[in-house]
Amino acid sequence: MTTINNNFLKLNSSYLFSRIASEVKTYDSKNAGAPIISLGIGDVTQGLPSLAGQAMVDAIGDMLSPSTFRGYGPEQGYDFLRSAIVQSQYRSRNVDIDADEIFVSDGAKSDTANIQELFSDATRIAMNDPVYPVYVDSNVIGGRTGKWVDGRYEGVVYIPISSKNNYRFLLPDVPVDLIYVCSPNNPTGAVATKEELQRLVDFALDCGAVIIYDAAYESFIRDPRFPRSIYEIPRACECAIECNSLSKSAGFTGLRCAYTVVPKKLQVKDAEGTSHSLRDLWLRRQTTKFNGVAYPIQRAAAAMFTPEGQAQIRELTDYYLKNATIIRALLDETSLEFSGGLHAPYIWINVKQDSWECFRMLLEEARVVVTPGAGFGPSGEGHIRISAFAMRESVVSALQRLRPILLMNWKK
Amino acid sequence: MTTINNNFLKLNSSYLFSRIASEVKTYDSKNAGAPIISLGIGDVTQGLPSLAGQAMVDAIGDMLSPSTFRGYGPEQGYDFLRSAIVQSQYRSRNVDIDADEIFVSDGAKSDTANIQELFSDATRIAMNDPVYPVYVDSNVIGGRTGKWVDGRYEGVVYIPISSKNNYRFLLPDVPVDLIYVCSPNNPTGAVATKEELQRLVDFALDCGAVIIYDAAYESFIRDPRFPRSIYEIPRACECAIECNSLSKSAGFTGLRCAYTVVPKKLQVKDAEGTSHSLRDLWLRRQTTKFNGVAYPIQRAAAAMFTPEGQAQIRELTDYYLKNATIIRALLDETSLEFSGGLHAPYIWINVKQDSWECFRMLLEEARVVVTPGAGFGPSGEGHIRISAFAMRESVVSALQRLRPILLMNWKK
Repeated sequence: MTTINNNFLKLNSSYLFSRIASEVKTYDSKNAGAPIISLGIGDVTQGLPSLAGQAMVDAIGDMLSPSTFRGYGPEQGYDFLRSAIVQSQYRSRNVDIDADEIFVSDGAKSDTANIQELFSDATRIAMNDPVYPVYVDSNVIGGRTGKWVDGRYEGVVYIPISSKNNYRFLLPDVPVDLIYVCSPNNPTGAVATKEELQRLVDFALDCGAVIIYDAAYESFIRDPRFPRSIYEIPRACECAIECNSLSKSAGFTGLRCAYTVVPKKLQVKDAEGTSHSLRDLWLRRQTTKFNGVAYPIQRAAAAMFTPEGQAQIRELTDYYLKNATIIRALLDETSLEFSGGLHAPYIWINVKQDSWECFRMLLEEARVVVTPGAGFGPSGEGHIRISAFAMRESVVSALQRLRPILLMNWKK
Repeated sequence: MTTINNNFLKLNSSYLFSRIASEVKTYDSKNAGAPIISLGIGDVTQGLPSLAGQAMVDAIGDMLSPSTFRGYGPEQGYDFLRSAIVQSQYRSRNVDIDADEIFVSDGAKSDTANIQELFSDATRIAMNDPVYPVYVDSNVIGGRTGKWVDGRYEGVVYIPISSKNNYRFLLPDVPVDLIYVCSPNNPTGAVATKEELQRLVDFALDCGAVIIYDAAYESFIRDPRFPRSIYEIPRACECAIECNSLSKSAGFTGLRCAYTVVPKKLQVKDAEGTSHSLRDLWLRRQTTKFNGVAYPIQRAAAAMFTPEGQAQIRELTDYYLKNATIIRALLDETSLEFSGGLHAPYIWINVKQDSWECFRMLLEEARVVVTPGAGFGPSGEGHIRISAFAMRESVVSALQRLRPILLMNWKK
């Protein structure tokens, strides 16, 4: 008789953003009022850049005629896109990455969730806490954690990030095998400095760990002090996989295109001590279990890696960064501790109360959706995340509603 | 120190179609001659249906303006598409499937590869042999097989399908937990009858197995004797998951859109004997590790489930079935045993010689690519698969080249 993968039963609740969507829907259906404004899930709201739209329309033209039709493409992405990524994201910054180290996919969510398949069951995973829940949830399903006990999964090395250390990135205090790091960070909005990443790379090389570096918010960085790729750090290509996405940069959340870099220099041993190329392993995984991204979407993505495309990305991300500045200005009027909103679209606020309670209070009193920090890990408790991905008028309206509540509860 | 998932080392070779593409590329670069014609990988060649193209262009229009922009959609697909699938594929055939049992994805390859995650490590898997290699490869990576010994993975229940039984579908001769069945079959082209599927469902209900039913070629069926969905069989919704795709029906190989049905009635026990809804488990898997299909592609897919869309699918599949008829006609002139090519785009030929040798012989002597049967499993040895997914003129040219070789080697 068939039995299920019992690891699913360890998952402590439904996927965070599904749960929020469901709570908001239920609340809204029972309570009439002004339209609910979401500063919750980090979903872009501006229209798709015109260059991406035009590239897609042109590509659909190709698809309509048998002579220019494109069927199955390479699972790892078309050369035209991989080369454009290499040129725009790496060579232009003097980082040495080749096109055959780039794997195009349908999302950084998919890649950061699937990458754990490459590693043994005994892999000891570590992650900054709070963090994007997909990293730990995918490892729970994959059987690399123990049970959910007292708000944590047994066996996972959580690296608590809090106001005590100003929400800066820290290293594990024990040797580990796999470390997930996201910078600019979701949810804290912290951005890793060159020195912090250098320490991370040194740590990984020292204990033979692999870093999964999620750079999905890299396009929000405006200060050259902060690296836009982990490969700007010497020897990172011996220990780090980098995931990036067009979702937050070019507004592709509804188009689904991302890429992961697995450098050829990244070698990991098998149980018998023989070294293997992780790039080759990921290629085998992708060719076996994935069939590539739609051709018109790869064309749209390639358009965004031209100089004109980069200018459109700059304009889009500037818009959201301006939102963040407006949100920070209100918080500055309160006694609340917060981080982020500079070089990052998220603002992380220490509300010092149960985060789901705060979520519900703001939903009920202001009809504004934020994300409860507990959903990002045990150290997220007591915090909420505000997303700057919203239309300006929504941000302004939301802040008008939040203002009296924040000033009353957190007077300066 | 990090170590890899050793199960990758069990995989006996690279993914079949990547290996073929690489062998053909190497051969072509070293041997000048007439253009190579591929009757190998089952990739469509006709242009994208106009309805799909128009729906995508309209959807891109939506994406360009903030007021109609669509960002993250539901991971399991938009309601408009799930409802269209239910109406067109199930209700119209008096099959009772609800929209909340439909999960839209980027491909039947992804779904058939990922579905094994729902089941315990101890799951005993069975499959018709030969079969689409993704079923077994995904289970190898997932650790549900032993080593590759004498052309088989230990622990897998292979159900040999051969000319002895006219390539009909058979049942395992032992109880199993998970059975993969593809009808119309890839690679044999056999189509399961109502009676064969009834026996399969009875077997699964009897031993508590789950059926993974891959119906990706369902749109090629022209005879009502053959069910187009396994749910046409009573009680199949208690034991079967059905995967389907727009790749082969609507020419979406380069657009990536598919769907999987996990009925609410499908319950599977955990290690402690408590029943769980597989639908809920798959929803959790998809919301955690996947972020949905691009909005314009879901609009294109929905257009194909209208009556006009179904007419365009009929026209496309008729074209490929005509190719199959032409290929069968040549084979009828030879002494070769073969199956398929009726209600199916593949023709499976018993060449009674090493299948990779035959592949190379046809590549060298005719510059025609076919698929070596050994790539589909141990019982595929001695066979080749010819795909009818090609332009008519390519099929005609390929057959002109193959004709003297086939008639010389397999005289009637």
